[in-house]
Amino acid sequence: MDDYPPTARTKVRRLPKRGSYDKLAVHAILDEGFVCHVGFAVDGQPYVIPTVYARAEATLYIHGSAVSRTLRTLTRGVPVCITVTLLDGLVLARSAFHHSLNYRSVVMIGTARLVDDRNEKMTALARITNHVVPARWEEARMPSELELRQSSVLALPLEEVSAKIRRGPPVDDEDDYALPIWAGVVPVETRLGSPIDDGRVLLGVAAIDLTRFRRRAPSGE
Amino acid sequence: MDDYPPTARTKVRRLPKRGSYDKLAVHAILDEGFVCHVGFAVDGQPYVIPTVYARAEATLYIHGSAVSRTLRTLTRGVPVCITVTLLDGLVLARSAFHHSLNYRSVVMIGTARLVDDRNEKMTALARITNHVVPARWEEARMPSELELRQSSVLALPLEEVSAKIRRGPPVDDEDDYALPIWAGVVPVETRLGSPIDDGRVLLGVAAIDLTRFRRRAPSGE
Repeated sequence: MDDYPPTARTKVRRLPKRGSYDKLAVHAILDEGFVCHVGFAVDGQPYVIPTVYARAEATLYIHGSAVSRTLRTLTRGVPVCITVTLLDGLVLARSAFHHSLNYRSVVMIGTARLVDDRNEKMTALARITNHVVPARWEEARMPSELELRQSSVLALPLEEVSAKIRRGPPVDDEDDYALPIWAGVVPVETRLGSPIDDGRVLLGVAAIDLTRFRRRAPSGE
Repeated sequence: MDDYPPTARTKVRRLPKRGSYDKLAVHAILDEGFVCHVGFAVDGQPYVIPTVYARAEATLYIHGSAVSRTLRTLTRGVPVCITVTLLDGLVLARSAFHHSLNYRSVVMIGTARLVDDRNEKMTALARITNHVVPARWEEARMPSELELRQSSVLALPLEEVSAKIRRGPPVDDEDDYALPIWAGVVPVETRLGSPIDDGRVLLGVAAIDLTRFRRRAPSGE
């Protein structure tokens, strides 16, 4: 697959070797995350709201109910920045200055529009549901027309996109390697725990099988 | 402890029962997170950048190098929104509509300033380092004057702050409890893995002890 062409707004300037515009790298990060942070501005004041999302080819759909109150007056679309961050490790160097985090993040910039079309909205909600729990849409009770109207979905075309990745051990100044200080990486792992039913599951209904989830990589360094 | 008074910009309007302005609740979330997402706007275009942070009483300090390129032209401070989100669980309802996430988030709004004062910058960097790895500042090699100049710290006074928390099982429509569909919570756990040294640690230097970290709660529901 090819790259998202870097623009003045997405080019990674600080520590550019951490930047990537490769679509495979970008999509792998998006497909692993559960939550994105949506940034938008109202009268110059930025807001950053967490929400669920899914990618469908070159479009990012987000569940927009948390932001739609603010955005629904905007019929022509609204400039947004949507960021997904996966934390992989704490990087402990010998010097305070070289401490860091191992992470993979994607920053997406553009103009989001409210999804009005009923079919597109259903498809987007299916994608978002199945992004969090694969194949869940096919077993859950479908939305009623009222629920569909109460749901709010925003779409962002993936055009200005960049990934930033740091991995591996700390990098200390050469002189500092002589210091008797432990240095390395403490992995941060995101795992799914044992399902807890809600106490009203009908007899004979099997608990959700964790193997159906996308593997939550014990990511380490 | 008392509350952050809700303002027009921080009042939780959608699902208000999930909102909290209690300082203890807010600070507990801030003290558990590793990464915040900083939102700021340039010429009306929002940007959302992940970075490390620490709270010092009623001030949030963030490591600003990733955003300072854009912000350093602004000497009078810049409107920001800084959000910290902890994901605790996937909430599976019987209806697609009532699927949700269990999470704890804090949204902080205000005007951030660049920290110029050398002593305040040192103190803030110590707080940020020790927020990620408790007591690390006291054992690491201190920043040189050059490293200090190369570091960039932003300070946000905690004034307009709100927390939003969802916990517990899904809430289905009463009719849907008769459906033979599993419903409940799949906990999402954030854990620290075994430390991986960088291969150049001096003989006799003990590996970092994970018990010194703030407990990463197996948070579940």
